[in-house]
Amino acid sequence: MSTPDGPARVLVTGFEPFGGERTNPSWEAVRLLDAAPPPGTRLVTARLSCVFGTALAERREAIVRSDPDLVLCVGQAGGRPDLTVERVAVNVDDARIPDNAGRQPLDEPVVAGGPAAYFAALPVKACVAAARAAGVPASVSQTAGTFVCNHVFYGLSHLIATERPALRGGFVHVPYAPHQVAAVGAPSMAPRDMATGLAAILTAALGTTTDLHTVEGATH
Amino acid sequence: MSTPDGPARVLVTGFEPFGGERTNPSWEAVRLLDAAPPPGTRLVTARLSCVFGTALAERREAIVRSDPDLVLCVGQAGGRPDLTVERVAVNVDDARIPDNAGRQPLDEPVVAGGPAAYFAALPVKACVAAARAAGVPASVSQTAGTFVCNHVFYGLSHLIATERPALRGGFVHVPYAPHQVAAVGAPSMAPRDMATGLAAILTAALGTTTDLHTVEGATH
Amino acid sequence: MSTPDGPARVLVTGFEPFGGERTNPSWEAVRLLDAAPPPGTRLVTARLSCVFGTALAERREAIVRSDPDLVLCVGQAGGRPDLTVERVAVNVDDARIPDNAGRQPLDEPVVAGGPAAYFAALPVKACVAAARAAGVPASVSQTAGTFVCNHVFYGLSHLIATERPALRGGFVHVPYAPHQVAAVGAPSMAPRDMATGLAAILTAALGTTTDLHTVEGATH
Amino acid sequence: MSTPDGPARVLVTGFEPFGGERTNPSWEAVRLLDAAPPPGTRLVTARLSCVFGTALAERREAIVRSDPDLVLCVGQAGGRPDLTVERVAVNVDDARIPDNAGRQPLDEPVVAGGPAAYFAALPVKACVAAARAAGVPASVSQTAGTFVCNHVFYGLSHLIATERPALRGGFVHVPYAPHQVAAVGAPSMAPRDMATGLAAILTAALGTTTDLHTVEGATH
Repeated sequence: MSTPDGPARVLVTGFEPFGGERTNPSWEAVRLLDAAPPPGTRLVTARLSCVFGTALAERREAIVRSDPDLVLCVGQAGGRPDLTVERVAVNVDDARIPDNAGRQPLDEPVVAGGPAAYFAALPVKACVAAARAAGVPASVSQTAGTFVCNHVFYGLSHLIATERPALRGGFVHVPYAPHQVAAVGAPSMAPRDMATGLAAILTAALGTTTDLHTVEGATH
Repeated sequence: MSTPDGPARVLVTGFEPFGGERTNPSWEAVRLLDAAPPPGTRLVTARLSCVFGTALAERREAIVRSDPDLVLCVGQAGGRPDLTVERVAVNVDDARIPDNAGRQPLDEPVVAGGPAAYFAALPVKACVAAARAAGVPASVSQTAGTFVCNHVFYGLSHLIATERPALRGGFVHVPYAPHQVAAVGAPSMAPRDMATGLAAILTAALGTTTDLHTVEGATH
Repeated sequence: MSTPDGPARVLVTGFEPFGGERTNPSWEAVRLLDAAPPPGTRLVTARLSCVFGTALAERREAIVRSDPDLVLCVGQAGGRPDLTVERVAVNVDDARIPDNAGRQPLDEPVVAGGPAAYFAALPVKACVAAARAAGVPASVSQTAGTFVCNHVFYGLSHLIATERPALRGGFVHVPYAPHQVAAVGAPSMAPRDMATGLAAILTAALGTTTDLHTVEGATH
Repeated sequence: MSTPDGPARVLVTGFEPFGGERTNPSWEAVRLLDAAPPPGTRLVTARLSCVFGTALAERREAIVRSDPDLVLCVGQAGGRPDLTVERVAVNVDDARIPDNAGRQPLDEPVVAGGPAAYFAALPVKACVAAARAAGVPASVSQTAGTFVCNHVFYGLSHLIATERPALRGGFVHVPYAPHQVAAVGAPSMAPRDMATGLAAILTAALGTTTDLHTVEGATH
């Protein structure tokens, strides 16, 4: 997996807490991943603000700083039961709740004049298969929502398309951590399992040039 | 709502049954709508095959025949509890199950060389608000899936973008009808309520030039 | 279904709204049923308060007044997608929210010294089969909760067991009505379909002496 | 928590796999618990067959062998997102699927002539609170279903009521383990977290004489 120039450089981002939560499992998982990175990789991590615009600037700065071969952005999708590798980023900011700076854009483009959507620059089905092979529940998702996660995903995809065609990258959503929903009755996943799944995804993304064509579509 | 040339011409399509079902509630709802069309409209309906490619040809033929001002395509989203007005059509055919001709495309474009996605040529939030005002549960959906429904939605959107810029149109998913899930334990909606909601959506689509900017986004 | 003495006397109860709702679909359904009662029945209806204790007194008074052969109590189970015929009433009041008089009993018996539970004095599987045959989604439920619905169900069952052994009766939960959840994204059912299902259940309950032994159990 | 006679004797049972699964997370969790039992306890474990009748005999034999102060029976509730401490055992075997011996009883009593139900001989709310305090999602459940889990729970409760009044005990359902649903999209929990929760529950059950009266009821 290492390149001619040495280990693959990977930037992995998580988010700060939002929506009244005290932690964000995406950042818990990223830190666990960082403590035991997959062999052949050199990891850089960054914690992004849950703020429209600011998150994109922070992610851009992290890319400039680390000059990665691969960028994996990770965020919380409270209520989903498994890791979801996002297939498509959409050019819309349409916030259901205010972001951490109190802004709530409605029906605004992420990038004015940008295309309606980008497909992930990741072999999404190979990533899902790798997480499952590691025993971690995972699936392909057809929507990353319209909040800051999709915002960062679209921004990354636009950067790849317009400025860094050699860069690969995409977005993975993680469930709640158990401690967030101890009294709530929602699905959760242990952050250690998230990190195991992310390591498998990252390894698959680095090692796969052509995606699998497995059955992962949605009838609706 | 009628145009200077008379009542607005509207094409509404439903689907034939698929996935082992004996009926398709989208077609039940469209027939009920056709029996009592909203004032100021002249409705034409068409039942599309649940077959990749064929459905697009049938829909194109129906447009040529009826020369509509608005096209509303309707399909079944079994498991969803409400009418969902789709926001975005994606350029991918990725079938979870075979279509009614036994074909199961994986990761193929709907239109080779087409953009990754189109936003609906519909005021989706005004449509949702209108259905709700009529007492019918409705919401904006961020994904129409990757099966024949999305295929038809993308095909329609591409036609509008490339050949018929004056045409408006989009896609609405309906839940199961009650009789389909009498012994299943899944959400359903009475076809009469679907038709009421579709009439409200159609009227809103014809009468609205600028969409509402209400809070209908998704955090993920 | 009529008895030697004429049509079967049936008491059907619904509830007043609770939990901040403005209507209760159980009462909407009962009124529709009352407007078109099944042949061979003489219906009496009563709307019960959503208040511990008071609801039992009202139901007792309605029984004294109407001297029924069968009592069907109906309540709202918001979030369930189908009619659920309750199998078992439990001797506990354990309120998640205050009732309409502001009382919130915790872990109190419905009837001090009463048995832990009663099975419904209804052929629950025959009732479910009848609703389905009428095209209305239905299933057996293993729990009526621990709020006022279970309270009324247990109280009725205790009355039958201790005072009126010839009386039959039980409890049916109905989903939300569509207008309650137009903007919520929860399952619902048209009150007219609820009434159709209740008529089928009532007819089955009156005409069935031995229940069906169909597969309706739950693994958990 | 230890008694005057030394550490508390605790019997914890799990189940063999059923329903086509290759493992049963209840047994995985029980083995992890057994490898690190809470201080002040002496654990005995038993793996029960998923067979009506046989499971009761095996549990009875394990009780005779270990003479416990507390019995905690654990089983899989696939689809639930959290540990569920069962409140009530019902006197009915009503199998949705055949057990591992191919038997599928319908509407038969667990114990002929036994009462309709027993409440758990456990402080269920204190147990739930203890699991949550350990960071493990948990809730009170109002139904253990009508399959082998409820069968064992009712049988245990009947044994306590009729033969061993000093014994305490109940039933806890656990979610799927992640590896069971890697490709399924259902909620799961890491067996290590299950074991942490079970240890907390067991400790609470041993140390609590009067249950908490917290808000854990269900509206339906």
